[in-house]
Amino acid sequence: MIILVINAGSSSLKFQLYQMTDESVLAKGKVERIGMESAILTYEPEGKQDIREVREILEHTTAIRRVLDMLVHPEFGVLQSAAQIEAVGHRVVHGGESFSSSVRVNEEVKREIKRLFDLAPLHNPAHMLGIQAVEANMPNTPQAVVFDTAFHQTMPETSYLYPIPMVLYKKHKIRRYGFHGMSHAYVSERAASFLGRPLSELKLVTCHIGNGASCAAVLHGQSLDTSMGLTPLEGLMMGTRSGDIDPAIVPFTMGKEDLTLSEVNSMLNKHSGLMAISGISSDMREITQAMEAGDRNATLAFKMYEYRLRKYIGAYAAAMNGIDAIVFTAGVGENSAVLRDAVCRNLTFLGLELDEAANMRRDGGERVITKPGSRVQALVIPTNEELVIARDTHRLIFKSNHVE
Amino acid sequence: MIILVINAGSSSLKFQLYQMTDESVLAKGKVERIGMESAILTYEPEGKQDIREVREILEHTTAIRRVLDMLVHPEFGVLQSAAQIEAVGHRVVHGGESFSSSVRVNEEVKREIKRLFDLAPLHNPAHMLGIQAVEANMPNTPQAVVFDTAFHQTMPETSYLYPIPMVLYKKHKIRRYGFHGMSHAYVSERAASFLGRPLSELKLVTCHIGNGASCAAVLHGQSLDTSMGLTPLEGLMMGTRSGDIDPAIVPFTMGKEDLTLSEVNSMLNKHSGLMAISGISSDMREITQAMEAGDRNATLAFKMYEYRLRKYIGAYAAAMNGIDAIVFTAGVGENSAVLRDAVCRNLTFLGLELDEAANMRRDGGERVITKPGSRVQALVIPTNEELVIARDTHRLIFKSNHVE
Repeated sequence: MIILVINAGSSSLKFQLYQMTDESVLAKGKVERIGMESAILTYEPEGKQDIREVREILEHTTAIRRVLDMLVHPEFGVLQSAAQIEAVGHRVVHGGESFSSSVRVNEEVKREIKRLFDLAPLHNPAHMLGIQAVEANMPNTPQAVVFDTAFHQTMPETSYLYPIPMVLYKKHKIRRYGFHGMSHAYVSERAASFLGRPLSELKLVTCHIGNGASCAAVLHGQSLDTSMGLTPLEGLMMGTRSGDIDPAIVPFTMGKEDLTLSEVNSMLNKHSGLMAISGISSDMREITQAMEAGDRNATLAFKMYEYRLRKYIGAYAAAMNGIDAIVFTAGVGENSAVLRDAVCRNLTFLGLELDEAANMRRDGGERVITKPGSRVQALVIPTNEELVIARDTHRLIFKSNHVE
Repeated sequence: MIILVINAGSSSLKFQLYQMTDESVLAKGKVERIGMESAILTYEPEGKQDIREVREILEHTTAIRRVLDMLVHPEFGVLQSAAQIEAVGHRVVHGGESFSSSVRVNEEVKREIKRLFDLAPLHNPAHMLGIQAVEANMPNTPQAVVFDTAFHQTMPETSYLYPIPMVLYKKHKIRRYGFHGMSHAYVSERAASFLGRPLSELKLVTCHIGNGASCAAVLHGQSLDTSMGLTPLEGLMMGTRSGDIDPAIVPFTMGKEDLTLSEVNSMLNKHSGLMAISGISSDMREITQAMEAGDRNATLAFKMYEYRLRKYIGAYAAAMNGIDAIVFTAGVGENSAVLRDAVCRNLTFLGLELDEAANMRRDGGERVITKPGSRVQALVIPTNEELVIARDTHRLIFKSNHVE
């Protein structure tokens, strides 16, 4: 039961090979700069030497072929033959309103993912290239797709509709979708398990804080609300994304600076957030270092980032009339003790009592960072989106054959 | 000590005449459709018959003259002579970063209000017409200006900066200003007085919910944060304004529907909010009636409106690490018991216990709507922005002469 997990971008392709009997990773890696003569293949087989190769890879089919070559390489490979891969699972960013769970790939699913190109023009076309590249290389291997949006399809219309003319929803499907769904779902389940309580009884705020960042209000295991919206721009302040701003700033700035639609999108997605305020970096580690060295702008960037995250936690507490636990995950959420400290320190009104020592500990595992008896608990739960894809693929391909 | 309060719009002018010895209103009214042959003057003198007159009024100087004519009218007037008006106070929407309190009008103040035209192109030019119209009619009467933004100038940069390129703040002063400041300030003071506690010790969330609507986090008497931003578009869902949306919706919609900057502004400011979702009305009274009659879209509009308001209250509780009281004011806040009920019912996690009977009572005065012993209190405090303008004007013109 070996499953290959693929996350295809327009010029990159990440992969992980899972042995599902024990959910171990046999190998992982990525291809970068697809389309260039000097594309880079990085390959990390479990228990063997890592490989880094620079060579011409002009499109995704070749990229997959090179990955398969590595996986079966006489010296560095982890498989005898590519035929041992029994299924392939893909990450797909946008499932629109069509997909509320992962699905096995077929012609209709592919047509639907294409129809959604419009809502995720930077992502879905690349995912489709990944699916087609696997088809070309492994025509008989079943594939599944796992969506970033699917978990949030439980949101009620009170959460997902915007107070704008309804025709925009009807004609263009403009609504809140939310992203990072695999992560919010995964850490919710892990949190319930860790707390030894049924997920169906818990009110959680899950904070997926990476370079992209989103919060979700997870009520009884279902997404009630989330901070990203039609696109991943809305919500929290991020590495290079603004998150929430007065929407009037968009036309105001376009007028003042004579910007096109794509320029203003680029400004808000790539040149805002931590980067814009600190002038230093979009990376929380560098922001924190600069802050500790006394840099004024880095300190301001950190404070804004923390403040905006904390307000979302409060908003979602009000959305659910209280919370049982806050879950921190992803790069910043798992590793920035100083961010978690600043957030939790100002949430004592919820009945949250931070255990400062537990919060500072860097053991990397799942852990509670509040004191025993804290009415609201805070947890650090490392996320694992690839494992979610592998599991969903495994379930769809091997456990559900009888219902198809 | 008689003071005339003026709120000048581009084609309208509202006024109230105050006797400051007892803060009573001697007369009030408005001129509408300025610039038309069929302008309408409405005049309501205290204790006398109301007047409604349709006549040509082509600009603001004539409008002020007609108001003064009414105030000294032999039969319907309330003054012997216009010279009895000792000062005039104007509402000015945008004071930018230049004004953190009300000021007496002089040449420099007028120049500064003009410099701010850019930030409030629909409002400040009209206010300037009002100031000039008073000068033309009453050249020796001192004037003061009271700003919607001034109260929020205490916000720290953590609240007022947006996570967008800093050059936009430096070049164009793009930042959060906030509005309804007179109202947030007034109801904060009244709430403290009503609760018998010093304002300097209270954490309040003030909810000014009218056709326009904003919340403020008022920490120890100072505005810490507020939901309106660069413009009055941001924040809560309103009668016809969207409030918060994914900023990416702006370029997305402009592209899909081929909208200009002014068309997208108009869509979000005039054709969104309650109106867009209900398809019925921007007026909460009509929405509530339709909801009670079972209308699906009105119910959805109400729920979204309530939900978005509730999330802001939670966000500001997190901003201040708890709250002592929530204050409801303005048209909807003072009159919609059903909205207050829905909000408060889902805030029991804060320790707020609604007194349903007190909430339903329609006595119009200042009142607590939570149960005795409720840890967080909710209050209804009728706002009075005209009185704030009259008081500030009175203070500036008559009490501060010695410091000028």
